[in-house]
Amino acid sequence: SKRYSITLLPGDGIGPEVISVAKRVLNLAGSLEGIEFNFQEMPMGGSALDLVGVPLPEETLSAAKKSDAVLLGAIGGYKWDKNEKHLKPETGLLQLREGLGVFANLRPATVLPQLVDASTLKKEVAEGVDLMVVRELTGGIYFGKPRGFGTNEDGEEIGFNTEVYATYEVDRIARVAFETARKRHGKLCSVDKANVLEASMFWRKRVIAVAAEYPDVELSHMYVDNAAMQLVRNPKQFDTIVTNNIFGDILSDEASMITGSIGMLPSASLGSTGPGLFEPIHGSAPDIANQDKANPLATVLSAAMLLKYGLGEENAAKRIENAVLDTLNKGFRTGDIYSAGNKLVGCKEMGEEVLKSV
Amino acid sequence: SKRYSITLLPGDGIGPEVISVAKRVLNLAGSLEGIEFNFQEMPMGGSALDLVGVPLPEETLSAAKKSDAVLLGAIGGYKWDKNEKHLKPETGLLQLREGLGVFANLRPATVLPQLVDASTLKKEVAEGVDLMVVRELTGGIYFGKPRGFGTNEDGEEIGFNTEVYATYEVDRIARVAFETARKRHGKLCSVDKANVLEASMFWRKRVIAVAAEYPDVELSHMYVDNAAMQLVRNPKQFDTIVTNNIFGDILSDEASMITGSIGMLPSASLGSTGPGLFEPIHGSAPDIANQDKANPLATVLSAAMLLKYGLGEENAAKRIENAVLDTLNKGFRTGDIYSAGNKLVGCKEMGEEVLKSV
Ligand SMILES: CC(C)[C@H](C(=O)O)[C@@H](O)C(=O)O
Ligand SMILES: CC(C)[C@H](C(=O)O)[C@@H](O)C(=O)O
Repeated sequence: SKRYSITLLPGDGIGPEVISVAKRVLNLAGSLEGIEFNFQEMPMGGSALDLVGVPLPEETLSAAKKSDAVLLGAIGGYKWDKNEKHLKPETGLLQLREGLGVFANLRPATVLPQLVDASTLKKEVAEGVDLMVVRELTGGIYFGKPRGFGTNEDGEEIGFNTEVYATYEVDRIARVAFETARKRHGKLCSVDKANVLEASMFWRKRVIAVAAEYPDVELSHMYVDNAAMQLVRNPKQFDTIVTNNIFGDILSDEASMITGSIGMLPSASLGSTGPGLFEPIHGSAPDIANQDKANPLATVLSAAMLLKYGLGEENAAKRIENAVLDTLNKGFRTGDIYSAGNKLVGCKEMGEEVLKSV
Repeated sequence: SKRYSITLLPGDGIGPEVISVAKRVLNLAGSLEGIEFNFQEMPMGGSALDLVGVPLPEETLSAAKKSDAVLLGAIGGYKWDKNEKHLKPETGLLQLREGLGVFANLRPATVLPQLVDASTLKKEVAEGVDLMVVRELTGGIYFGKPRGFGTNEDGEEIGFNTEVYATYEVDRIARVAFETARKRHGKLCSVDKANVLEASMFWRKRVIAVAAEYPDVELSHMYVDNAAMQLVRNPKQFDTIVTNNIFGDILSDEASMITGSIGMLPSASLGSTGPGLFEPIHGSAPDIANQDKANPLATVLSAAMLLKYGLGEENAAKRIENAVLDTLNKGFRTGDIYSAGNKLVGCKEMGEEVLKSV
């Protein structure tokens, strides 16, 4: 039987609850496919800050690097919100992404027929939405230098950051995006602000250059302000979207809210080599932590992405995806996706139900 | 009788059609309030490129500077999309904003009861939305230096921009935002990405400092990715939003699409002294140019903002606003906001109807 080592990073808030469900689901799906997992839980985020004073302990990063894949719950909370930058949970996440070199962040936004009513969009606008945002994750304004605080020529205080992309950075994310589009419906929309920003003009130039390798994929370009509108106007027009780190942060969250069920949405962050990082797109939801109210399905589906994109174990991934659909079809709903006529369950019970269908 | 000089910049696409309606409406509303206008039409955008080879001729900028207010139609079109940066219509707009020093861009997004069905959002989510985005317009990554193209340490080509804010820039936009919130419902939400960007941490620090002058306004902070979600989830939670240039570009467009009727939405750009710049938020819509199909109401309402914010002529502004509401109540609709049971009209006829109600 095959063996994989998985680093689990439960993190903060509802993180430990949803990770514990996903771990059980992974174990079961694995065992049915002849796969064994070696799980190692490591501290990260606010809980690591409380424990050892940094948001990403060295031991956590090196364990993650040595494993075959990393599954993260969620990080952050009011408690650490006012911390200095290097002591913020979010900084730990950025260090983890950088440390693992996971430059390609895949964020699907799918409206399941079972949950179409959860969207604030009209049914006819929301139904059938099935798009993928491919976000550049280790470059751009998140990591660009110079950055910091200083004074300008007039002696005024300033705060500044640098948006910067190099050829290899755009080329590699573009390739992931074209490959992704090719496996989906063959349409790729590159989002930028090339009518104003040089970094975006450069981005567009490289995306067009890489497009020559993918003549079968239909490439279009859209300005980011228009993309933010089009996601509201007619999200179905999109198949695969590729964009930079900050625009991807904004647009993928907007797209996820359009589905109305962000408690359902997984993500995968991949590098060229080494383990991928898999996490739900929702946050740590400190308000409902430790109350057995969290929706574990985004993390369960992140585990499915881990199997598919991280380990190439498509069969085990399919088992989990189908189990989630079965559970929804049976009418089980956590509070965030509850609607009349369904069965309201907590995090654990939702986990039990998924396990029954794996 | 009072006299004001107004620079009209019809621009490209549907620009001339909507400006011509707004001019007639201004003339009539003015004459009924004892105001006389001196209009001067100047070239700008793509049409200026075609005419004199630059998107903002010097004569246009100096005429604009000398006038009491500037009313712009729309700029841009496929024809000039591939131009080099300094020959893009958009560059002319940025030069105009910078030249006039209009650092505060006010973009209301209001769902009128008459048009609630135009929104792609469910009625209960869209109805009653009435928010104002205060966008910083002459700073940040749009204007920050250094910017351009180059090579990095590894000899790789790069494209880069600088996001930078100085104390006076944040302070003055924050003051406009607090004043705006005070005249509305007293709630201000400052949107940033202070969990990642130093420029945002600085922004937040200054907004908090300025807040001390406005103890009656309730200030909150939100990360931009969350704001993009909340606008979809529950736009009614917002009263006034203040944010930087690029986030404001994205969020104000998202907010406008939430109303479902961007053909209705005006904007005002104000400086500390000198004339303000008023323009519809929609684009130049080259597809429907010269077909008498454009919705002139966003430009008519921009003329109302010109009267109110630019000239302090509240009565004349009210006349125009009421005339627009009357016209909608009578059921007149251009194609973009048409729904069954109403009367479909073209740009000119819509103008005639508004004139009847001024
Ligand atoms: C927590 C934060 C640093 C992070 C980001 O901005 O990338 C989050 O919003 C995300 O999208 O994963
Ligand atoms: C045309 C473009 C330069 C402009 C901007 O980005 O500011 C437009 O999108 C706007 O919002 O007015």
